[in-house]
Amino acid sequence: MGYTDLDTLAVNTIRVLAVDATFKANSGHPGAPMGMAPVSHVLFNKFMNFNPQNPSWANRDRFVLSNGHGCMLQYALLHLFGYKVTLDDLKSFRQLDSITPGHPESHDTPGVEVTTGPLGQGFANAVGLAIAQRHSAAVFNKPGYELFNNYTYMFFGDGCAMEGIASEAASMAGHLKLGNLIAIYDDNGISIDGDTKCAFTEDVTKRFESYGWHVEWVKDGDNDLAGIEAAIKKCQAVTDKPSMIRLTTTIGFGSKLQGTGGVHGNPLKADDCEGVKQAFGFDPKQSFVVPQEVYDLYHKHSAEGAAKEQEWNQLFEKYATEHASEHAELTRRLSGKLAEGWEKHLPTYKPSDPANATRKLSETVLEKIHDVVPELLSGSADLTGSNNTRWKNAVDFQPPEYNIGDWSGRYIRYGVREHAMAAVMNGLAAYGTVIPAGGTFLNFVSYAAGAVRLSALSQVRAIYVATHDSIGLGEDGPTHQPIETLAHFRALPNCMVWRPADGNETSAAYYSALTSKHTPSILALTRQNLPQLELSTIERALKGAYVAVDAPNAAVTLISTGSEVSICVDAAAYLKEKHGVVARVVSVPCFEVFDAQDKSYKLQVLPDGIPVLSVEALSTMGWERYAHEQFGLNRFGASGPYKDVYKKFDFTPEGISKRAIATIDFYKGHTVRSPINRAFQQIL
Amino acid sequence: MGYTDLDTLAVNTIRVLAVDATFKANSGHPGAPMGMAPVSHVLFNKFMNFNPQNPSWANRDRFVLSNGHGCMLQYALLHLFGYKVTLDDLKSFRQLDSITPGHPESHDTPGVEVTTGPLGQGFANAVGLAIAQRHSAAVFNKPGYELFNNYTYMFFGDGCAMEGIASEAASMAGHLKLGNLIAIYDDNGISIDGDTKCAFTEDVTKRFESYGWHVEWVKDGDNDLAGIEAAIKKCQAVTDKPSMIRLTTTIGFGSKLQGTGGVHGNPLKADDCEGVKQAFGFDPKQSFVVPQEVYDLYHKHSAEGAAKEQEWNQLFEKYATEHASEHAELTRRLSGKLAEGWEKHLPTYKPSDPANATRKLSETVLEKIHDVVPELLSGSADLTGSNNTRWKNAVDFQPPEYNIGDWSGRYIRYGVREHAMAAVMNGLAAYGTVIPAGGTFLNFVSYAAGAVRLSALSQVRAIYVATHDSIGLGEDGPTHQPIETLAHFRALPNCMVWRPADGNETSAAYYSALTSKHTPSILALTRQNLPQLELSTIERALKGAYVAVDAPNAAVTLISTGSEVSICVDAAAYLKEKHGVVARVVSVPCFEVFDAQDKSYKLQVLPDGIPVLSVEALSTMGWERYAHEQFGLNRFGASGPYKDVYKKFDFTPEGISKRAIATIDFYKGHTVRSPINRAFQQIL
Repeated sequence: MGYTDLDTLAVNTIRVLAVDATFKANSGHPGAPMGMAPVSHVLFNKFMNFNPQNPSWANRDRFVLSNGHGCMLQYALLHLFGYKVTLDDLKSFRQLDSITPGHPESHDTPGVEVTTGPLGQGFANAVGLAIAQRHSAAVFNKPGYELFNNYTYMFFGDGCAMEGIASEAASMAGHLKLGNLIAIYDDNGISIDGDTKCAFTEDVTKRFESYGWHVEWVKDGDNDLAGIEAAIKKCQAVTDKPSMIRLTTTIGFGSKLQGTGGVHGNPLKADDCEGVKQAFGFDPKQSFVVPQEVYDLYHKHSAEGAAKEQEWNQLFEKYATEHASEHAELTRRLSGKLAEGWEKHLPTYKPSDPANATRKLSETVLEKIHDVVPELLSGSADLTGSNNTRWKNAVDFQPPEYNIGDWSGRYIRYGVREHAMAAVMNGLAAYGTVIPAGGTFLNFVSYAAGAVRLSALSQVRAIYVATHDSIGLGEDGPTHQPIETLAHFRALPNCMVWRPADGNETSAAYYSALTSKHTPSILALTRQNLPQLELSTIERALKGAYVAVDAPNAAVTLISTGSEVSICVDAAAYLKEKHGVVARVVSVPCFEVFDAQDKSYKLQVLPDGIPVLSVEALSTMGWERYAHEQFGLNRFGASGPYKDVYKKFDFTPEGISKRAIATIDFYKGHTVRSPINRAFQQIL
Repeated sequence: MGYTDLDTLAVNTIRVLAVDATFKANSGHPGAPMGMAPVSHVLFNKFMNFNPQNPSWANRDRFVLSNGHGCMLQYALLHLFGYKVTLDDLKSFRQLDSITPGHPESHDTPGVEVTTGPLGQGFANAVGLAIAQRHSAAVFNKPGYELFNNYTYMFFGDGCAMEGIASEAASMAGHLKLGNLIAIYDDNGISIDGDTKCAFTEDVTKRFESYGWHVEWVKDGDNDLAGIEAAIKKCQAVTDKPSMIRLTTTIGFGSKLQGTGGVHGNPLKADDCEGVKQAFGFDPKQSFVVPQEVYDLYHKHSAEGAAKEQEWNQLFEKYATEHASEHAELTRRLSGKLAEGWEKHLPTYKPSDPANATRKLSETVLEKIHDVVPELLSGSADLTGSNNTRWKNAVDFQPPEYNIGDWSGRYIRYGVREHAMAAVMNGLAAYGTVIPAGGTFLNFVSYAAGAVRLSALSQVRAIYVATHDSIGLGEDGPTHQPIETLAHFRALPNCMVWRPADGNETSAAYYSALTSKHTPSILALTRQNLPQLELSTIERALKGAYVAVDAPNAAVTLISTGSEVSICVDAAAYLKEKHGVVARVVSVPCFEVFDAQDKSYKLQVLPDGIPVLSVEALSTMGWERYAHEQFGLNRFGASGPYKDVYKKFDFTPEGISKRAIATIDFYKGHTVRSPINRAFQQIL
């Protein structure tokens, strides 16, 4: 192995850069970078294959920093190895509009694979990256063409280890026998509250073994570079289990406060910075100094990585001749584009087609498109039969030895692990060759809120199939009936929430979700049957909102989504018949898409002069954006057959009509401006 | 032990009731009740102390069904033992307005301790109940007066075992050595997707051992009543560890489909129902039959429980003579009332008092009131120094052998386990002698969304101290800056979201949270300093909204919360000085409380004739309720010093003024009605 002073110098360069950047920012976390510099040095310089000139090389090894607060470690490494992260970028750590924000963001910084910081997320992302690798290898590797054989390496700390999402993901990775995943646990015994002994005394090694992981322990993670190297090698040799290296380190190694909570989340004091530099042989008066020999060492490794990519590219060119269709397919997938003409397979419906639940219509979409969208990996958090996420002939993604699927399988059994599912999906999407769709009840997307937020922030194409989307689920009752959920996710930036009202709208939702490369989508789907609307088409639904029942000289517009649209259609008929009142109906399957239309279209849908009443059997919050008055459910639901529950809460033609008339009366004699007209533009 | 045919009959009676009720409802989960009837029989009839005539006896043993979908098991037991759950109630299972909803709801059904069904929640609730027991024993038990010595028994299934929240709670319970907690794992190998082998192959026993639990295994949970009894006895003998009994059962025991996913979530077919009854010696043509000897057996046990309560009541009376003040204190706590005059200790502020962060002002509240609200148990998910949740002389709640606290401690180190924290808090609140407060960053309350929802649904007094409540947290960046979070929780029914703007408003938030016996509260608090407002008082803030800057003939009202209120105050001055425009400012620290005021007050705050502009550095969603126009942040934030971030997004006096003028212009020449005026009342 032969580690020399140069290795020590490189390790200490990483440490000192972290000290300097957090000191200059007067903010950030020096402790983890100082403790994990040794393992980073060994991992990046001895094991990892990557080319900083092309951070998107398909077969690069993936690195995930689940303890994302330690991101100065990652930024320092990216800089030292020659990614497009300059010394000035390090000097701008945690400053406005820098590419070195307070936690790693994949869309900001070249070389950052996934957005981490919220604890435990990166752990599950790494499981997703490893699944994607296994799957891509199974689909694309051929004899003599090992296109995909990369590892996923992931660091995590005590905080991640305590988070339930990491437990879920670890159990899943163990079940899936992901031998391509190597996690390194920064066992430094310190979290924000100080010694982890105050809250976290479990046997982590035994826990990971219980999940079916291989575990190594390096007792002197501060110095034992050879021991680290040996441990990683042993883990690589275990191919039928994920591996965890328990790396015992000293947080803030080198600081006067090393080994204490004092170095976790605060920069070192000036004198401590100087002391660290002195101890590590750096000039205490200088900052952001990188010895040339460290650059040379790391750039040499990067050059080797570039050469490996070159070899890979040649292999891939040769692959084109022997496996032309697979080559074309992989090239297409890596571009993020869908196959030409795929959308022609989306089912369409006539008004005379039978009523159906949108969860079933979603299943039909999957049935029709799964062959032409082979990058789609579906799955469910143990609700397959309820979410209808599995097409008939789907093969499960499973280790072949279980005899219930194989690595090429496109259906993932996530188990009852919603939070991990969403974060695994973020990892899958980040890999670059697959598009994940995962199902649960809409109400339990909330269990996954932390990860769905990161789908949006990190701009990935992930599709949440969220069935049982309202009191319409009936008997399961208030514990399962979402009320606040759509308001929550509609308020989340860069997240599309679809609530289709029928078959054509369901097809539109999938079209939008699959073609939105940088935005996750939540598809809120019913358990109960809905009729096909008269005027719905995929094209109209793709405007986000459209007129579902038109009527000249209408006195009121009813605007609605999903299962309530057809009740509004009935309400319009009821208003006409019983009250001689003319109502038009607007279906708005997706707020975010409608918001993106031009103003003249929006004003056609919601014209001046007609008061608007919204109808949705969920929280009214947010509906004021389109409606002068709102009819919804600002309380918890009830357990009972769904028709009884709808009736209890007045979501009937009569109940809607009553409120429509109240709305008309309220605006009588007033100038009615469309809610589309606003005083100023929002910051977006 | 001597189990007889009567025991078998009792077990089968439970099974048949579950079969009948789900069949009649044509909905529900017969499988778990049929599999867990034997352990229920042994546990309830041989071990548990309770009095069905008084389900709120303070020292009753607690029972939690974490696999809440199996609630027909619980309803059957409650009926058979004589709680106020009739045979007719069982016949109304899952029907509208019954007391036997689709999942157990504590506020609906006598004998149901906590609301479960969302998987994993009950597991963590039970940990909370066990903590509350330990704490109450430490505070109130005296030599000769063992007032609190109850056990918490909890059932959980494979689904719960997969959920991260249960992993978090299990790790916490192991650390805390909760020997008063006995969990029974229904190891039936089936979840909704079928055989758990498709997703869940970990070694659960080993995992629980790694957390520090004692584990027993009963291999024939379907029949071995003596083995079950022996296992529970062994667990009771282990007093320094929580215990888990792995109980291997056959889901749907007795059905033709037993041992398959077919009996998990669907009623049995008619012929299968008949077959089950025949096999168990019941008349296949009759339904809802309870043999009198089963009633007799169970009522005898209930009578013994009533006698034990009687003894306890006598002991408690005697306690009054020897420990008068503790007796009075416990009596008060059990009534849910706070100590007379406690609110006089809430700090108040003058405008001249120094600027301060609301998280620090929250700390001051805790510092001032912790002595007079001794039932308050604070804590944090490993962010103590950031959440400021710990008063100076607080003692940690810890097993005494760690020498870092004791059982009487009132500060809980939850670890980095937000979801479990919230569900543990629900359990603490349900115990009846303590009020929980727990801290994390506002953004990470989203990790706990599943449990916060149940705080609201189950109507418990839990206080979430949610600091770092906006882009004002600065450098940590978008991964930590909430945008959608307040919209989410404001849309959640029965949840109060407070975002105080200064010291008096912070005191008001605590007053409201502590006196709202049936509603959880989220306190959104700043990291950054805020000035004390001119007109703020506790009384005014307790109206939910009040006029913070009054001005006759104002052209616009600026309505705002928290850290943006003082910027609005500055904006009003800026508007006057630079544009000669008169603006008034309204602070609305709590939407839910303001909504509850009478209309005339609300119209004083937001009068007709003046357009309203809302200002909050979070999603604008929901603000239309009070404001004609909204200024907010419908995109993710940015990493940088907080003042730079505020400036970037225009949350400055100038930025607000610009939009105020646009608002005034937009409404010029239009009749302006207050947003308080609505066409009809919402369903609440």
